[in-house]
Amino acid sequence: MNERQPARRPGGRSARVRAEVHQAVTGLINERGYGNFTVGDVAARAGVADSSIYRRWGNLDTLLTDVALTHLNARSPMPDTGSLAGDLRAYAANVAREITGPDGLALLRLAVALSHNGRQGVKARDDLLAERSRQMQSMLDRSRERGEQAPDALDVLDHVLAPMYVRVLLGIGPLTPDYVDGLVDRLLSSRPSSQSRVR
Amino acid sequence: MNERQPARRPGGRSARVRAEVHQAVTGLINERGYGNFTVGDVAARAGVADSSIYRRWGNLDTLLTDVALTHLNARSPMPDTGSLAGDLRAYAANVAREITGPDGLALLRLAVALSHNGRQGVKARDDLLAERSRQMQSMLDRSRERGEQAPDALDVLDHVLAPMYVRVLLGIGPLTPDYVDGLVDRLLSSRPSSQSRVR
Repeated sequence: MNERQPARRPGGRSARVRAEVHQAVTGLINERGYGNFTVGDVAARAGVADSSIYRRWGNLDTLLTDVALTHLNARSPMPDTGSLAGDLRAYAANVAREITGPDGLALLRLAVALSHNGRQGVKARDDLLAERSRQMQSMLDRSRERGEQAPDALDVLDHVLAPMYVRVLLGIGPLTPDYVDGLVDRLLSSRPSSQSRVR
Repeated sequence: MNERQPARRPGGRSARVRAEVHQAVTGLINERGYGNFTVGDVAARAGVADSSIYRRWGNLDTLLTDVALTHLNARSPMPDTGSLAGDLRAYAANVAREITGPDGLALLRLAVALSHNGRQGVKARDDLLAERSRQMQSMLDRSRERGEQAPDALDVLDHVLAPMYVRVLLGIGPLTPDYVDGLVDRLLSSRPSSQSRVR
């Protein structure tokens, strides 16, 4: 595709342009890293006009956030296995698979970059965190409705997500299933107030 | 200082140039982020010739690693309080203070950036991790010599350092003393094999 006119109407072309722009962003982040490309680079790679990107997303940070949120929502569905331990293990496995893929690494580095990029970056970061928190909270709420004692969402961030994020960001791998399950088990056994006896 | 000649001899001028180059790098990382400046930018900001940077450090990644290692070694001395819990709490407090400072954030973002920057980046990352691991291992070895059951260095990374790193990188703060102590206490109480009864 080598479209030179901005997509003016929603629908087929609009969705196609969005997908191609997202793909261009992911490719540029993986190849160059965040901060090393412009809206013009994205437009050229996606084969669209700069103006169509500015019209649709307003600026690069908003586009990057849209890409990141699309990844998160598409790739880490919140599992519902019937137990907290099962949900957390399945969720952690999903995240491990996501962040060990090339797009996942780009997403992690994007979250780091956006989080210190002025007001737009902070807004983007808050959108990312809010979306993740909503998904996590719904899983934890289901657990409490079953009468389980669930940890706080921030405990999951600290002791399940953060270790995996840091190991991937620092290149300390691999994230084996035993390692990932172990993070969940340690979290659930590390505080009486968050213990779960469902296994 | 507006030195235009490279420093040819070690000693006073050499040390002064090194300090000014390091300061220029930290400033550029804080202001622009990694990947958004060149050796020429560093030289101009430090008031030295590009050639003196290339002669001394060879390339930008080596310079960045030198800056990062200097930060780590200067700012996070390994404490020796006589107990594992005391050492880990003091160490975690040092790291929290380091990474919540502007240079600390630059260091974190630098570690993330260097870790996926080709061979030089991997080498730089390995240098960073090796230095940290040596410091951490010496602390854990002292603990075992006292007969305490110490966690592995990677457990400390996963459950004490990683949560603080991710909270700072994502802008979720502050790292209160209670929060930091809580990370240590949870680590020491989360596995019988790594429990410490020194408190």
